[in-house]
Amino acid sequence: MVRSLRWEDGNLVLLDQTRLPAEIVETRQETIEQVWESIKLLRVRGAPAIGVAAAYGLLVGLKAFRNFPLAEFLAKLEEQAAYLNSSRPTAVNLSWSLRRMADFAARRLDWLDNAAQLYDQLVGEAIRIHQEDKAICQAIGENGLALIREGTGVLTHCNAGALATSELGTATAPLYLAHARGMRFRVYADETRPLLQGARLTAWELQRAGLDVTLICDNMAASVMSKGLVDICIVGCDRVAANGDTANKIGTLGVAIIARHFDIPFYVACPSSTVDLATCDGDGIVIEEREADEVLSCGAHRIGPEGAKVRNPAFDVTPHRLIAGFITERGILRPPYVDSLARNFG
Amino acid sequence: MVRSLRWEDGNLVLLDQTRLPAEIVETRQETIEQVWESIKLLRVRGAPAIGVAAAYGLLVGLKAFRNFPLAEFLAKLEEQAAYLNSSRPTAVNLSWSLRRMADFAARRLDWLDNAAQLYDQLVGEAIRIHQEDKAICQAIGENGLALIREGTGVLTHCNAGALATSELGTATAPLYLAHARGMRFRVYADETRPLLQGARLTAWELQRAGLDVTLICDNMAASVMSKGLVDICIVGCDRVAANGDTANKIGTLGVAIIARHFDIPFYVACPSSTVDLATCDGDGIVIEEREADEVLSCGAHRIGPEGAKVRNPAFDVTPHRLIAGFITERGILRPPYVDSLARNFG
Repeated sequence: MVRSLRWEDGNLVLLDQTRLPAEIVETRQETIEQVWESIKLLRVRGAPAIGVAAAYGLLVGLKAFRNFPLAEFLAKLEEQAAYLNSSRPTAVNLSWSLRRMADFAARRLDWLDNAAQLYDQLVGEAIRIHQEDKAICQAIGENGLALIREGTGVLTHCNAGALATSELGTATAPLYLAHARGMRFRVYADETRPLLQGARLTAWELQRAGLDVTLICDNMAASVMSKGLVDICIVGCDRVAANGDTANKIGTLGVAIIARHFDIPFYVACPSSTVDLATCDGDGIVIEEREADEVLSCGAHRIGPEGAKVRNPAFDVTPHRLIAGFITERGILRPPYVDSLARNFG
Repeated sequence: MVRSLRWEDGNLVLLDQTRLPAEIVETRQETIEQVWESIKLLRVRGAPAIGVAAAYGLLVGLKAFRNFPLAEFLAKLEEQAAYLNSSRPTAVNLSWSLRRMADFAARRLDWLDNAAQLYDQLVGEAIRIHQEDKAICQAIGENGLALIREGTGVLTHCNAGALATSELGTATAPLYLAHARGMRFRVYADETRPLLQGARLTAWELQRAGLDVTLICDNMAASVMSKGLVDICIVGCDRVAANGDTANKIGTLGVAIIARHFDIPFYVACPSSTVDLATCDGDGIVIEEREADEVLSCGAHRIGPEGAKVRNPAFDVTPHRLIAGFITERGILRPPYVDSLARNFG
């Protein structure tokens, strides 16, 4: 199984996903600026993995301040958490995980003598966040398993796989578990322009694990669905609002609309850390707009004309009406989501 | 204005569209095998341009047989027409244009003394096909002009522009005419993976002509439409069946479904040469499946994992129910298409 990140001898090591599948390169993160850049440039990406990387990344930044007075250490923590949180705006896991680390520190304050003790306890909390993410992926896999049957055709978009999380992935977790039980089924992976996470990451990790995966261009999803090859769509998510509106990688909305057209159920695999009950609906979700160059090129290959105008939203919002269910660690949630999300994650 | 091809001093010269926008290279076609390869490898592409290139391409092949007895010349013509027709299966213009050349030759037979005379008359017929295509583009532009208003947002897919035809393009013809009249409006061009005709050709030719064009990845179409930026979709077509089912570049079906979801009218710009009344509906249209490498790479840049399974249909079929109208040289045709197509092109 591939691993997007590990905590090793007090250091954060990230697999550089921008270089996959051509090269497998792991990099030890020496500074918080390096972690910030790794998140910004998508060396580590996927909402759950970003959350875990941010918790460990905070430790990378705080290491040098372990001998500071507690109050100053705490001020540094708040400052560095705010800095890391500025790396990407859309995934809620980033702020969720940093908030959790800061809250944990605040609760421990009265019980500790010095910052070094607090730092050690924060290491424990980051490892718990990591372990919980693994457990959540496992639970999502078990809860989604019933959706996969012998011969099922599954379409997924972007990468909500092992590389986006700590282990089984979210959207891929039911697939990995079904495969482990010897079930045979087909997966269609949208390549997911502009950064091709589907081609470079999903097709790669599923193929490595021995699953039957077929890579398609994003614009082939309708064709594949029209031919009756897809029985279910499962995607991940970066932020789920209280009413179920879901921000996920650009292109997800199109998949959901096309799936609805062909009466194919469209599911979102959703760890609790991605649910943002403080945001009422999709209109409240900030969508990151990225550099034009990502659209104007494909790797180092220039494809668009010089000076072309470009739009490059990194995400879109799928309205809750198009979603058949959320596969969560608590089970599959059904509409009305404003109730089922609040009941399970309120 | 860019030109996809020209007939010059008895030779066919093609603009190599696979090298755009990086390089502008025109190549004189010396043999019919070279013409076959130019069509197969998409150096010349777009249904109408393929039709014109095939008519001239047949002349390239027949040049060496001008001193043959008439009957043998005619046998060569049939043989070479069949050969050229095998270069791509989906666009009907290819077989339409070759059939027209062969029928023309058959009708002239009794009136001519030798093959050289027939060859000269076939040159005239090919030039007529070319001129008619220009006139058809102009008429499509005039008939579609009323669909464009000040401030309109137009989304198009692939390239049904000047590069796909002889002059104004089909889907782009109303845009070029509206622009010439000083109207201001926005065009969104889907990049159109895997071969990126939207990025490399449409964005390039519209930008060159001074239109306000924004390049997007295919999977951003739903996002752009959801934000109210698109008022109309106009695409080209490669084959229209008698009931209006339309084969066009892969991804067109998805655009049509998403447009319907947002109540955005979806139009097909359709020269008569693309209408195939002999094919009842979309099920009868052969869809070309192309090489896996096109999906696994982007130009010279490898994006997918080694040995990945791939699907690569070059076209999809949009059912007539999703089409608001066909913009043709005879006017805008409305449903029921089985009647309006037969009435105009029967």
